Amino acid sequence: MPHTARQVQLTRHPEGEVSPSHFRIVEVELPELGDGEVLVRNLFTSVDPALRLQLRRQAPGGYFNAFPLNAPMDGIMSVGEVVESRAEGFARGDAVSHGWGWRDLAVVPACVMSVGGVGTLAKLDTSLGPAEMFLGPLGNMGLTAYVGLVHAAELRDGDVVWVSAAAGAVGSIAAQIAKLGGHRVIGSAGSADKVAFLLDELGLDAAFDYHGGPVLDQLRAVARDGIDVYFDNVGGDHLQAALAMLRRWGRIAMCGAISEYELTEPQPGPTNLFQAVANDLTVRGFRASSHLDLLPESSRVLGGWLASGRLRYRQTIIDGLEHAPDALVAMLAGETVGKTLVRI
Amino acid sequence: MPHTARQVQLTRHPEGEVSPSHFRIVEVELPELGDGEVLVRNLFTSVDPALRLQLRRQAPGGYFNAFPLNAPMDGIMSVGEVVESRAEGFARGDAVSHGWGWRDLAVVPACVMSVGGVGTLAKLDTSLGPAEMFLGPLGNMGLTAYVGLVHAAELRDGDVVWVSAAAGAVGSIAAQIAKLGGHRVIGSAGSADKVAFLLDELGLDAAFDYHGGPVLDQLRAVARDGIDVYFDNVGGDHLQAALAMLRRWGRIAMCGAISEYELTEPQPGPTNLFQAVANDLTVRGFRASSHLDLLPESSRVLGGWLASGRLRYRQTIIDGLEHAPDALVAMLAGETVGKTLVRI
Repeated sequence: MPHTARQVQLTRHPEGEVSPSHFRIVEVELPELGDGEVLVRNLFTSVDPALRLQLRRQAPGGYFNAFPLNAPMDGIMSVGEVVESRAEGFARGDAVSHGWGWRDLAVVPACVMSVGGVGTLAKLDTSLGPAEMFLGPLGNMGLTAYVGLVHAAELRDGDVVWVSAAAGAVGSIAAQIAKLGGHRVIGSAGSADKVAFLLDELGLDAAFDYHGGPVLDQLRAVARDGIDVYFDNVGGDHLQAALAMLRRWGRIAMCGAISEYELTEPQPGPTNLFQAVANDLTVRGFRASSHLDLLPESSRVLGGWLASGRLRYRQTIIDGLEHAPDALVAMLAGETVGKTLVRI
Repeated sequence: MPHTARQVQLTRHPEGEVSPSHFRIVEVELPELGDGEVLVRNLFTSVDPALRLQLRRQAPGGYFNAFPLNAPMDGIMSVGEVVESRAEGFARGDAVSHGWGWRDLAVVPACVMSVGGVGTLAKLDTSLGPAEMFLGPLGNMGLTAYVGLVHAAELRDGDVVWVSAAAGAVGSIAAQIAKLGGHRVIGSAGSADKVAFLLDELGLDAAFDYHGGPVLDQLRAVARDGIDVYFDNVGGDHLQAALAMLRRWGRIAMCGAISEYELTEPQPGPTNLFQAVANDLTVRGFRASSHLDLLPESSRVLGGWLASGRLRYRQTIIDGLEHAPDALVAMLAGETVGKTLVRI
């Protein structure tokens, strides 16, 4: 019996700010389930900053692919429930995650995805937490924070750590991992409410609103003696400020550059990159998807902290698949806190 | 008996291109030798790109200090012969290196220098090579190339390596270390003669003149499948091209940025730094002076290759202390090959 699915599709490439007018909702008839495939009813689908890069005509070389126009947006993580299975190891009722997002029903092949394994159909161990947590701390968001600090930044005892977009999905986890490791942690975000969240709920040592004045001045005010690690989710003036304030042997984990994703022209990099030479700095870009082998470890560690209440986790949930574009717009405008999710 | 020394001194800070008019030659009477000091007659004094940064009103934070005006230029490496010693472990006739350069006679304290040990008075083992080689492969130039490849770039089997300013003091050694390690090595330089030097004398696999067209196009033409390591002496369009061509897990050893040293305004960084995220790249700045513990190792390795004739080493020697500023101008203009030295 054929199934009808609702999908969000990109209809034209945004130049500058993305809006719901760049998308459409369509109903499509799904093909019959083939061997090795499962039919999944999605419960939550993800809204990530990096997704904005995939809306470009051409995504950065080597990064995730650009989404084709008027086609399902493959590659966006979702969690749901298996309704029907023709794949070994998957049965009706299983909670799963996969990369066939921004749609309510998906035919998903049970095979390892080509791009680093991201989006591969996987059963969820819901004893660790509810399904949507696998789009957050128990999934790639947690892995991203974990890999960024442990691998890219090579976090060491005594490091003073600055995390930008620290009220975001990845930033809030990264800041807490560092805090739970005994570090002095500074967070920055884009509103007074978020700053209060960082200080009061996450217990960071210092926090500032980047709208409140030049980033460098604000950073210096709370880190007079400099910083050792910068977890970069923002790029632009944040990255420039970090280079200025990093002490000798400092490290930057480059995770994202959300300040630049909606700009139409390539942005010049920091004018003070030479600080890397002067102070023996390491700037390391990374993708969590290149470290999927660490996912069991990050999920175990973060799941334990979640269960014991040591790790706080905030979500902004938008209801209705048709509002996925609105959720993206709100997230890029800095209006959401923690992980942004669409409940279908 | 007091001695008279000739010194080159900076009289005003260059804005833009440096010229001999920014310097003066003065005769000064040296103080009496104190306890723990030696009097050295310098034979060769060094001309390094990084010296240009020290001519600025303010040197990059954390880097070597700016030279004060109308004062001896402390910190420039020199080699010479001890004429008189009041320091234990040093005797008349010893060949030594130290940081009291751009002068013919120097009173040098036998103590460890504060800035990472660079410039510390040291006896030379001239069985390894003539004294001036300690301003080249047997000294900091060799260490810089060695540290950049081994430590900063973490050179691995099979890496394709690009070295910019490959006909320069550091670049020519770095290119050869990689070549002797069995790597495919691409060199770039600023003239047809230098390209011939890279191909014919150093035996690199490919080389190009950066004046011959856009750097990225020329690099791509000789590295269709990309590169794994970029040893950066130049910055600017070279760094941008490297980011575009680095394969996954690629590494940049940031050693210098000679293309920017004579510019009056801070230059924007590469517009494609996000490639670091997309391709899991590491950009690591380094200073050889932070790795002086590796100097015996680099000198031994490079000295062995020099002795066996496997390492080629070119010097451009300018005669006469009074021509040190001309030597600097010529080097910055790309008119010298290999290590630029002044013979006093």
